[in-house]
Amino acid sequence: MAKKLTSRSEDYSKWYNELVVTAGLAENSGVRGSMVIKPYGYAIWEKMQAELDRKFKATGHENAYFPLFIPKSYFSKEASHVDGFAKECAVVTHYRLKNAEDGSGVVVDETAKLEEELIVRPTSETIIWDTYRKWIQSYRDLPILVNQWANVVRWEMRTRLFLRTAEFLWQEGHTAHATKQEAIAEAEQMLDVYADFAQDFMAMPVVKGVKSENERFAGALETYCIESLMQDGKALQAGTSHFLGQNFAKAFDVKFASKEGKEEYVWATSWGVSTRLMGALVMVHSDDNGLVLPPKLAPYQVVIVPIYKGDEQLNQISEKVKEIKQQLEDAGVTVKYDNRDTYKPGWKFNEYELKGVPLRIGIGPRDLANGTLELARRDTLTKEIVQMDGVVEVIKERLEQIQQNLFAKADTFRTENTREANSWEEFEDLIKNTGGFVLAHWDGTPETEDKIKDLTKATIRCIPLDAISEEGTCILTGKPSQRRVLFAKAY
Amino acid sequence: MAKKLTSRSEDYSKWYNELVVTAGLAENSGVRGSMVIKPYGYAIWEKMQAELDRKFKATGHENAYFPLFIPKSYFSKEASHVDGFAKECAVVTHYRLKNAEDGSGVVVDETAKLEEELIVRPTSETIIWDTYRKWIQSYRDLPILVNQWANVVRWEMRTRLFLRTAEFLWQEGHTAHATKQEAIAEAEQMLDVYADFAQDFMAMPVVKGVKSENERFAGALETYCIESLMQDGKALQAGTSHFLGQNFAKAFDVKFASKEGKEEYVWATSWGVSTRLMGALVMVHSDDNGLVLPPKLAPYQVVIVPIYKGDEQLNQISEKVKEIKQQLEDAGVTVKYDNRDTYKPGWKFNEYELKGVPLRIGIGPRDLANGTLELARRDTLTKEIVQMDGVVEVIKERLEQIQQNLFAKADTFRTENTREANSWEEFEDLIKNTGGFVLAHWDGTPETEDKIKDLTKATIRCIPLDAISEEGTCILTGKPSQRRVLFAKAY
Repeated sequence: MAKKLTSRSEDYSKWYNELVVTAGLAENSGVRGSMVIKPYGYAIWEKMQAELDRKFKATGHENAYFPLFIPKSYFSKEASHVDGFAKECAVVTHYRLKNAEDGSGVVVDETAKLEEELIVRPTSETIIWDTYRKWIQSYRDLPILVNQWANVVRWEMRTRLFLRTAEFLWQEGHTAHATKQEAIAEAEQMLDVYADFAQDFMAMPVVKGVKSENERFAGALETYCIESLMQDGKALQAGTSHFLGQNFAKAFDVKFASKEGKEEYVWATSWGVSTRLMGALVMVHSDDNGLVLPPKLAPYQVVIVPIYKGDEQLNQISEKVKEIKQQLEDAGVTVKYDNRDTYKPGWKFNEYELKGVPLRIGIGPRDLANGTLELARRDTLTKEIVQMDGVVEVIKERLEQIQQNLFAKADTFRTENTREANSWEEFEDLIKNTGGFVLAHWDGTPETEDKIKDLTKATIRCIPLDAISEEGTCILTGKPSQRRVLFAKAY
Repeated sequence: MAKKLTSRSEDYSKWYNELVVTAGLAENSGVRGSMVIKPYGYAIWEKMQAELDRKFKATGHENAYFPLFIPKSYFSKEASHVDGFAKECAVVTHYRLKNAEDGSGVVVDETAKLEEELIVRPTSETIIWDTYRKWIQSYRDLPILVNQWANVVRWEMRTRLFLRTAEFLWQEGHTAHATKQEAIAEAEQMLDVYADFAQDFMAMPVVKGVKSENERFAGALETYCIESLMQDGKALQAGTSHFLGQNFAKAFDVKFASKEGKEEYVWATSWGVSTRLMGALVMVHSDDNGLVLPPKLAPYQVVIVPIYKGDEQLNQISEKVKEIKQQLEDAGVTVKYDNRDTYKPGWKFNEYELKGVPLRIGIGPRDLANGTLELARRDTLTKEIVQMDGVVEVIKERLEQIQQNLFAKADTFRTENTREANSWEEFEDLIKNTGGFVLAHWDGTPETEDKIKDLTKATIRCIPLDAISEEGTCILTGKPSQRRVLFAKAY
């Protein structure tokens, strides 16, 4: 760790970028808008994947893989879908390079032009529903509960590591059902899966809701979402689950014979979360000293740093550490022992603070003599001396406490930063000067939502699923409203 | 299962394609040369991934992720590399679509042309070494042991499911080292990892060797490979590991300060296996009835089919099955219970034979009365009656036997189909009429290898690592040779 991070209060955005790079999560590449996910960042993503994949399988889903490329004509089949994605598509037009005649290097071989251009998938509804047509004839073939882990490309003009990149990694579930009710139940189930994951694993509280028409996925009848609040008072959409109705079945002519022998269009859902979650994870918990990781997603939960002079002390310490490490690993705790002699303990302490390792054990000759260890918590930055005997139980307890504390802290922050606005002045003031979630009445029209966005940059993050029925008047137009919706500026 | 498969003897290639599709492994998509990997096929690939990933991590590697797109200029930096891949590159030239003025749909927006074209990665050496330049300054930063799971695109003109597709899934390891010896040791270690995986998990014997200059990876100084033999007598390259020397370090200017303070270029390896392994798995073991899967890679190792009349019998059977299933799962055996009432037992028997499930349990009312089960082995197509008591131990033993039997069978086939040729006539006859591996002397020149390929379609699969020093004369030119190399026609 060469120098101190920019503090959050000084420049939140700069703090974020510096942190993502210096903690070894990701960095920009030589390819515009595409990032390199570095090993430490990828290890966190793998932990996210493993738990999400387990949850998908536990709810009956299987994985499959569909092509990266989508023929342009497929893309056009669902009208609102193509409108939503056409402006950010990477397009493959040729399939060969050749040596330039002037010897200047390789150039595109113009004779190898594709008859039909291929779009690099920004999402896979079209190619998947073209496939499902072949898989579905009868009600016996339903439901289809398939998920795919993949890379997708959306050509964003302004990119930020994890939050908005041209290429990103994600999973996309695509399910097919015999009835509308079943499809809606699926979309709602997957929203719950995402919310549980966010809260239990990422220690990140979320608001579950549905999107307004303006913010709905291109091609969906209803978009469910989880919204979270970052430390700078901006919202982040962490996952979405779409009820697609029969739109894609109609566009790709996917029908099934029902039990009663009638031919009907299939009902669809799709749902996804992406490497964007990595950005949320960083922004929800981390501090001016670096990352703060919830134990359930930390690549290693405990790091052990030896404090020694000379090889003899190091050997004695290492012997004891080997024993403790084994005990911890047997108890399911992941541990790294950093015995590199190329770096000093102080440097290592800073490094693992920056990397957000939940617990750090310091162990020196005095500890060996006393049968003690120094245990430091990353979340509270507190230290305690613990007995070696029974250290496994203490550590398991601390990890549990850290996981809970991170959630509680974020939940308190979210609660304290969710406010009601009852007039336009109040709303404008909150959005402009205070930030956070603002609950306000809205007349339900896309026009009003657009106008509010133009005036304040705030958007409707969602209509919370638990919104209470309440008579009120729209903060902008004064028209009647039946419930408050959640506004915020968003990532 | 609608109709019988074409037999292997009738048309091996047709048998393969039919089997891959009807067993639910993969199918062609609407995108030229790109396949859809279906859930059952993907489940096998996930098992392969899990074991390979475990082996990579056990040998000290970490995963990371690098961009899908590679700027054309990066591509040109290593001369032989660009020569090897330029003719099969998918090229992104534009980043936006727009509505056609004549209302005919969407077209490429010509105003959104990229300044520099982007290549969809056919392999990632160039983008990765451009990144490593930023990661490596000193010997302290070495070695870098990174692997990536990714999709890649090579524009093949003739494609076949799994064996040769425009897009495929793979892993690519890319490591950086301070010394030549260390890099060579790494390349050799990963070859062993691949060979162990092929033999222990896929039950597929392989020959370890190095490629001749002609068949070397574009940019490598040495390509190590594992070669396997399919049932039709053709060879299949199942994995490669490359010693890249300092070629990419020089092309991308990646130097490090050694312990002695000298500036030196970094040494490199790369190594990969792909979804091609799925094709090998099918072709090595399967028969005219369908897939035959080694237990270690089967999505479920045991399928239980109830044989019943009426709900009461089914309920009684299901209760017993629940118990047995739990016992098996506790013992680490994966089990599927197919109690669907939409299909008859006979249909299910055929279906699971086609899908290659290693063991099938049939259970009916008489079994309940007698405390027995019918156990059918997929590899030998034999049945036995076993006692319910102690069935877990019997099943574990059978699974182990199947795994071993499949390897032994394939190994015998490979041994019986590896022959020596000592004259051109003998060589030509073996290649043309018999097939299999042919061990023969070769004068060591690319020209002779090319000529042999032109005359017979056979290529040098590898120079086996265990080749015995033996004086001989080249089968084509009569020039002196010190050892036999392995020839075959190949996929």
